[in-house]
Amino acid sequence: MVHPLEDMRPAAVTASRFEQGFWGARLDTNRQRTLPSQHAQLAATGRIAALDPDHRPDDPRARHIFYDSDLAKWLEAACYSLSVHADAVLARQVEELIAAFGRLQRADGYLNSWFNIVCPEKRWRNLRDEHELYCAGHLMEAAVAHQQATGQGHFLAMLCRYADHIAAVFGRAPGQRRGYPGHEEIELALYKLYRATGQTRYLDLSRYFIDERGQSPPHYYDVEARARGEEPRGAPYDYCQAQAPVRAQDRAVGHAVRAMYLYSGMADIARHDADEGLLQAGLRLWENVVHRQLYVTGSVGASGQGERFTTDYDLPEETAYCETCAAIGLVFWAQRLLNMYGEGRFADVMERALYNGVLAGVSLSGDRYFYVNPLASRGDHHRQEWFGCACCPPNIARLLASLGTYAYSEGQAAWVHLYAAGGAELEVEGGTVRLDVATEYPWEGAVAIRVDPGRAREFALCLRLPGWCRQAGLRVAGEEVPVERVTRDGYARLRRTWQPGDLVELELAMPVERVWAHPAVRMANGKVALQRGPLVYCLEEADNPFVPLARLALPASAELRRVRRPDLLGGVDTIEGEALVAEVADWQETLYRTRPARTQAVRIAAVPYCAWDNRAPGQMLVWLRSL
Amino acid sequence: MVHPLEDMRPAAVTASRFEQGFWGARLDTNRQRTLPSQHAQLAATGRIAALDPDHRPDDPRARHIFYDSDLAKWLEAACYSLSVHADAVLARQVEELIAAFGRLQRADGYLNSWFNIVCPEKRWRNLRDEHELYCAGHLMEAAVAHQQATGQGHFLAMLCRYADHIAAVFGRAPGQRRGYPGHEEIELALYKLYRATGQTRYLDLSRYFIDERGQSPPHYYDVEARARGEEPRGAPYDYCQAQAPVRAQDRAVGHAVRAMYLYSGMADIARHDADEGLLQAGLRLWENVVHRQLYVTGSVGASGQGERFTTDYDLPEETAYCETCAAIGLVFWAQRLLNMYGEGRFADVMERALYNGVLAGVSLSGDRYFYVNPLASRGDHHRQEWFGCACCPPNIARLLASLGTYAYSEGQAAWVHLYAAGGAELEVEGGTVRLDVATEYPWEGAVAIRVDPGRAREFALCLRLPGWCRQAGLRVAGEEVPVERVTRDGYARLRRTWQPGDLVELELAMPVERVWAHPAVRMANGKVALQRGPLVYCLEEADNPFVPLARLALPASAELRRVRRPDLLGGVDTIEGEALVAEVADWQETLYRTRPARTQAVRIAAVPYCAWDNRAPGQMLVWLRSL
Repeated sequence: MVHPLEDMRPAAVTASRFEQGFWGARLDTNRQRTLPSQHAQLAATGRIAALDPDHRPDDPRARHIFYDSDLAKWLEAACYSLSVHADAVLARQVEELIAAFGRLQRADGYLNSWFNIVCPEKRWRNLRDEHELYCAGHLMEAAVAHQQATGQGHFLAMLCRYADHIAAVFGRAPGQRRGYPGHEEIELALYKLYRATGQTRYLDLSRYFIDERGQSPPHYYDVEARARGEEPRGAPYDYCQAQAPVRAQDRAVGHAVRAMYLYSGMADIARHDADEGLLQAGLRLWENVVHRQLYVTGSVGASGQGERFTTDYDLPEETAYCETCAAIGLVFWAQRLLNMYGEGRFADVMERALYNGVLAGVSLSGDRYFYVNPLASRGDHHRQEWFGCACCPPNIARLLASLGTYAYSEGQAAWVHLYAAGGAELEVEGGTVRLDVATEYPWEGAVAIRVDPGRAREFALCLRLPGWCRQAGLRVAGEEVPVERVTRDGYARLRRTWQPGDLVELELAMPVERVWAHPAVRMANGKVALQRGPLVYCLEEADNPFVPLARLALPASAELRRVRRPDLLGGVDTIEGEALVAEVADWQETLYRTRPARTQAVRIAAVPYCAWDNRAPGQMLVWLRSL
Repeated sequence: MVHPLEDMRPAAVTASRFEQGFWGARLDTNRQRTLPSQHAQLAATGRIAALDPDHRPDDPRARHIFYDSDLAKWLEAACYSLSVHADAVLARQVEELIAAFGRLQRADGYLNSWFNIVCPEKRWRNLRDEHELYCAGHLMEAAVAHQQATGQGHFLAMLCRYADHIAAVFGRAPGQRRGYPGHEEIELALYKLYRATGQTRYLDLSRYFIDERGQSPPHYYDVEARARGEEPRGAPYDYCQAQAPVRAQDRAVGHAVRAMYLYSGMADIARHDADEGLLQAGLRLWENVVHRQLYVTGSVGASGQGERFTTDYDLPEETAYCETCAAIGLVFWAQRLLNMYGEGRFADVMERALYNGVLAGVSLSGDRYFYVNPLASRGDHHRQEWFGCACCPPNIARLLASLGTYAYSEGQAAWVHLYAAGGAELEVEGGTVRLDVATEYPWEGAVAIRVDPGRAREFALCLRLPGWCRQAGLRVAGEEVPVERVTRDGYARLRRTWQPGDLVELELAMPVERVWAHPAVRMANGKVALQRGPLVYCLEEADNPFVPLARLALPASAELRRVRRPDLLGGVDTIEGEALVAEVADWQETLYRTRPARTQAVRIAAVPYCAWDNRAPGQMLVWLRSL
């Protein structure tokens, strides 16, 4: 039995700072380029106009069942940004959007642009497919972020009225419908609404949605299909994790983003209720994902058919789907488990996803996006400015704009999960602790943290020792601390009386590593991935003109060096070495023959996966043949 | 410039015998099991009833636009079988089907169960998608086979009337439509009809269909779309090889089966007309397919999306589509080029496709089929008794039932392309030559051919020296013949005065071979396929309990032995040796780690690819990692 920690919680968005360095640059781009360009895209693609009931577009595609969620995620991102950086233009855009949603809301609280304007008669008739509760959830998250950013309650009040309406419609009381969302998301959003308002009815509704899922017979999706006059598809509804009650589930199945959002909501409720059954179900699912279904890039959801999980160890590289939103959802889930258990194994997955599968989702320029993140490309996979189904871009924006909540935790201790130049002010055992962090992480393993509790005070500072790190050194106020003696569950736990200005120096050994996958991962047999620190690397055609890159093989004896390249991709470290390439010259027009290709030694250079496809289009490869 | 041979033609179906041995057993099964069970499937799935205008099925799917072609291919197969083996039941089934088609034929000659019964108003309105000319072509092929098998002309006359109708509707004369089939097939069928009847209007129509394809502007598929009130899709129509006139094409594109049928028809017309432009276009396409887009199993068409060719060297193993019909179509095309040029390179591809990609399409029991033939399987790919789209099963049946036409040619020489126990009676320079062939091919490379020209006579006997064979011995009437001295273009050409009873002894060295693919084939880098003689081998889980099979790697030094296994799969030779398997035991729940898997030496056994999936379901793998 696992006992969640009693008081550990993510830092507030406003509590952290990211200054220069790896994340400072990315977050500046997110604020300066991503948020404005996304607003322009939302306007240009009709998503904003779609809120106006009087707007009559020629093109019926100018409205869509999940447009509201795109707007809501952007609103949430913008509010996080406003909470730490005033911006009159952004604030006006936010209030205009909120006002437009306000004009759309019905007297009974219902709020959805598609169903209010296009087909009011279809409200709540198809939870399985039509994303109403999903859109509602995203609006709730946005409203909570808005209230926290501005201190104003009008948007939050709108969403409370909507939540009250939903609570009246769905539930187990007589006259209510026993429905639950086809695309989960509202569960975690209702929990946020509960935390923001203290209203337990939102907690109750979230708990209801979680526990009602997958109950049968009758299965609600069958019931509502019959009510629409349609033939039910019949069980299993594993596409949306409704094949069984969630407590009976032990494998991540179906649509990966839905799964991640559900599991995150389950973690919220399980922790709140100290619900051992729900906790254990969550951990079983976590272990399945992390031990059997996780890409080395921290992405999940192998198949594009249904954007879904497939079978254990099925992690193809070229056809990998790995939706950006799924990696983001994994970060959400990992963060919840991390703050529940305080164990580095959750932070390791969170970090892996964040630095690789998530961050690859947005260009260095901040205005182009991957929806799909394969681990090998023939050169035909490129970021786009926007998508018809545009869930990923504003999802990245809101994650980056709230990065501090993933980097730090507070409560009974001050926790540092992600190392980044900047710092935080954390509430620890009733007082404020200021941390100033100096580091070139993820390029260097040295982290210096100046601790300032205001006055000398005893408390614990918990510093993550990443799972990828095999050797760490630690000095506190100039004195060497034996790391293994203070480390538990992946964190160096430094409980002492801290003086203002105490310096903690952490040195994480960060060699270039070859990574092998479990032999059950079919495509990775005989291959290695290259990793240094939290960054997974890849080969791009731009640096390695040996297409197809599958021709390359890395001898076991090849020395791999980290090379600083301030000139490249905004400043990255590459991994370089000598590999063998299969020669094509003597094949001419032969397709098959009875002797192998000759090989030739060539220099190769790998770049961080998160920085790929920011240059000329070309092939890319994460898993490299190993000799 | 290539000069087609003046008189080389496939032997008639009735001219050859297959006795015991590899093919004898397969052909017995085809006759005894495949043809009757397919007739039962045609009946059980409503395909036969669908010919009856008075039959009113409840299920609208009980008729289909290409049901006629399934029936036609079965009829063709049955007629080939009847031509060499009397069977009263089969003959009755054939005549009943022909009579049903006869009742369906309109006064103007039009004959199509879908358009006659379901939607007469849509006749000839959508050549791009609706398979009318495709069905017509298959009926023509069946009618020619029927006339040749029975000597009766009623079916052939029906199809001549239909062809006359088609010739009246389509063409370049005023009032005619400039259309051509979306699914090619009628081109080669019309050529057969011309050969059977001597009527040049069928030749002209075939030539018209070939040369009109892809002409623009306007593009016919745009024209007919507008006539239906639809928005044209617009060029390129490469899915059905109509992106450009065929003479301007130099890469095989689009739907692979359509391509193979088109190219076969092009070869027929090019040869008949000695049309150098068309010949060269065909050779360009051939070289593209054989040098860039051919699986080692002789299959083509890499992608299931559109059942089509993709890009050069794109030959994925697990997701390989490789429709059985496409490999059959490749056999048709190869046979035409072989009989045009008399060069072994065409026979090599024909043999590779036949023994591997085609033959895998049917179970050893003769009543289960693959539509898709991947080169690796996770264990979830199995033959089925039938398909909603059932093109492949009767296509295999008709190919096997006419195998002799692929094995032998006649004309200015007696040609043996495929070695099989049995023999043939060939017309050579005005006389009959009887060949009696004794061999255990493809298990043994020894072939003994007794030649009987009736009386002593000079002519050439051309014996194929397969491209896979690197060392051959030859004795004629007891005397050693230096092979290299008599060999040209892959055939030992033995021109001499043959005495009745002369014995030719051919000894083809048949070692186990490792085969490597061109390094541009991404998935095959670092891997080998195993081949012996014409047979490509694969590993099945049944013999190699080391799933996933991708865990196996074959050291370069590993000795591979052929092992006779009369007990296995109806009697096959296996290839056995020692490989290394990556151990999973010490991974526990680790998905990624920084040291490679330990390996262990294990015995492996490979079976012929054509015999896979005839035992317990399991994984399969053709390309084996090579160390």
